Amino acid sequence: MAPPPPSPPAVSLKVLLLLLRVLTGVFLVIALIILSTNSVTIVSQGSALKFHFKDVYAYRYMLSAAVIGLVYAVIQLFFTISEFATGVKNPFNYQLDFYGDKLISYLVATGSAAGFGVTKDLKDTFLALVALDSTDPVDKFFSKGYASASLLLFAFICLAVLSVFSSFAMAKRN
Amino acid sequence: MAPPPPSPPAVSLKVLLLLLRVLTGVFLVIALIILSTNSVTIVSQGSALKFHFKDVYAYRYMLSAAVIGLVYAVIQLFFTISEFATGVKNPFNYQLDFYGDKLISYLVATGSAAGFGVTKDLKDTFLALVALDSTDPVDKFFSKGYASASLLLFAFICLAVLSVFSSFAMAKRN
Repeated sequence: MAPPPPSPPAVSLKVLLLLLRVLTGVFLVIALIILSTNSVTIVSQGSALKFHFKDVYAYRYMLSAAVIGLVYAVIQLFFTISEFATGVKNPFNYQLDFYGDKLISYLVATGSAAGFGVTKDLKDTFLALVALDSTDPVDKFFSKGYASASLLLFAFICLAVLSVFSSFAMAKRN
Repeated sequence: MAPPPPSPPAVSLKVLLLLLRVLTGVFLVIALIILSTNSVTIVSQGSALKFHFKDVYAYRYMLSAAVIGLVYAVIQLFFTISEFATGVKNPFNYQLDFYGDKLISYLVATGSAAGFGVTKDLKDTFLALVALDSTDPVDKFFSKGYASASLLLFAFICLAVLSVFSSFAMAKRN
């Protein structure tokens, strides 16, 4: 006789998972906006230099991690809402959750780490090596860098928690 | 009637897990040696400047991720070998594997990302802003940075694979 199908997760757990999916998307959208609009003009000894987030490779990596993470979050949000509505979870989704949450959490975590790492050291180097007429533009540029890296960190925390639950869900299903 | 205890994993799987644990430790030891011995003297317009890995915050984070990862790898190696010898796995170890592999894989992944991110951008900035008598020291310094970040990446891949297996092992046990 086939083992009884796993009992569906409690409603409160479902709501928590949905909330984490929404938060992940919100954090990544805000990070994308802040990062992609991050450009300043740095004046050094009278000459002006336009500085854009793309000039920092780690910020490019952070941006791609946020874009891929956001696409994944939207797809998962769609599945989670349809699951809510129908009360049925497609068997494939257990695998998608398990591997997707794990993979994307690594991607977003590394995007955040690259962002934090470069922001701290590059700002120190700029302030030490460039004779700036004013440090405000540099402060503004790297503050936005910190802000985006922090938002990716929050998104990563949501994804890491989701990853634990998707492991338990797969365990329960097996 | 209590469900039968889960059948022990095949010997080949056990050997694979042991190999991944050993590889993780080896990668992290080599990364630690390369990183902690990374210091150069940069000569710019006649004045010499001693540059040490500690001068780059992201490298400090990379070093701490490697140290913590190595301590974890050694502890897990001890458990894995004793499991091999006795054929018995302590129930606590399923949890240690599941949460440990997940947490440490995130730590090592972010250490590697911070290392890669800062190395690329800081090297470009140095070469652009500092009038160097010779670029060799800078090349050497940041090549070691890349080498350590790559070794952390390899260690992370081992830990990520281990994390998948420890999720399955916990699923099987439940």
